[in-house]
Amino acid sequence: MESTGVSGRTQQVDGASAPGVVSADHPGVVSLFGVLAYGEISAFYRLVEDAAMAPTLRDRIAMASMAAAEMNHFEVLEAALRDRGRDVLSVTEPFAAALDAYHASTLPSTWMEVLVKTYVADGLAADFYREIAHSLPAEVAATVREVLAETGHSEFVVSEVVARVAEDAAAKDRLMLWGRRLLGEAITQAQFVLAQREELTELVMTASGDFTGIVALFDRMQVRHSERMATLGLV
Amino acid sequence: MESTGVSGRTQQVDGASAPGVVSADHPGVVSLFGVLAYGEISAFYRLVEDAAMAPTLRDRIAMASMAAAEMNHFEVLEAALRDRGRDVLSVTEPFAAALDAYHASTLPSTWMEVLVKTYVADGLAADFYREIAHSLPAEVAATVREVLAETGHSEFVVSEVVARVAEDAAAKDRLMLWGRRLLGEAITQAQFVLAQREELTELVMTASGDFTGIVALFDRMQVRHSERMATLGLV
Repeated sequence: MESTGVSGRTQQVDGASAPGVVSADHPGVVSLFGVLAYGEISAFYRLVEDAAMAPTLRDRIAMASMAAAEMNHFEVLEAALRDRGRDVLSVTEPFAAALDAYHASTLPSTWMEVLVKTYVADGLAADFYREIAHSLPAEVAATVREVLAETGHSEFVVSEVVARVAEDAAAKDRLMLWGRRLLGEAITQAQFVLAQREELTELVMTASGDFTGIVALFDRMQVRHSERMATLGLV
Repeated sequence: MESTGVSGRTQQVDGASAPGVVSADHPGVVSLFGVLAYGEISAFYRLVEDAAMAPTLRDRIAMASMAAAEMNHFEVLEAALRDRGRDVLSVTEPFAAALDAYHASTLPSTWMEVLVKTYVADGLAADFYREIAHSLPAEVAATVREVLAETGHSEFVVSEVVARVAEDAAAKDRLMLWGRRLLGEAITQAQFVLAQREELTELVMTASGDFTGIVALFDRMQVRHSERMATLGLV
């Protein structure tokens, strides 16, 4: 199976079984930057809203730092789009509905739910983008990896959640259900985005090889989600 | 009048008429970083709250970028305090009440008020810190100037406000009153902070030379405030 040399706009994926490489001018690249950029801005506002439940100034500062890191990443994507002659607004707006729907369907009601969502949702997003990064042209992959770089801010989440669930079995049960819901909604919305945006489906298909590859990709994300839940003591 | 060589903890300002230089271990330096740091975190949350009134995604992005710049500055101060063996939380908390009071007393009720407050309040803060920066040891002054560096994000404010007040005389009148209120509340709260924190008063006194110097400092801030109002078309 030919895995390289697919051209940007005319590429057809006809049952390819091996992961391919996406060309730098594939229209899915701009959409990928667009969905990443809207993800950053929506995560920014979500983190700040959720910080209203933060019990201490230290927690408020930690949430603000994470939110600021999202905006710094947004600016990297804005610059990458500008280099391609594209305006970040027109490219991100098509993804607003799906990402807003994700947040609306997973509104946390306690500070512990805030913390688990912060950790789990960021991890899911990072997994997804890393899964496809290997098929992106080097320069595009570098941008994707830069905006998904560990900010080191989420470690405070682990210690707070681990301490709480160790001493409260009821809280632990509720947070395990919460984690499952976060995963389910993320997969639902990711599939919705892919179904609506042909150029993204094509990009992910090229990255995964074929439909079986996409299924395997979601399976691997589920495994890593379970590992993250275990890190939080939710097992 | 001796204007250099004042020692950190034993310095007395006895009617000095020429601006002096503060030593690097003056206790006012830690407090200065503390009030700056709380200013950044409180500006961060204020900008994000006010962004709820933003009419477009572009405006929401601009507000988020400004907020993120505040947090980046916060982190510079946090690191500077860590280098001095101080924890940012204990150093900033004493200033929470005064800065929260400032924001509570100047809650904008329209998007135009949000924009004017963003521009005017940031300008006032920058003026104040720049006024005293020349009296700080080089390394402290560098930190202060870094966290007050123009982020370039507030230019969008000028064009939106200028366009609006050019076509709406009633809005212009209301925004001129709003600007005066922002100035008045800022001076009230700044004086409150100085009155509560002896080490800061001493630092500002050293920077200004004497009480007449402080009065002149506030006069210059007022002049620059008027210039900013004029830039916004509010004259």
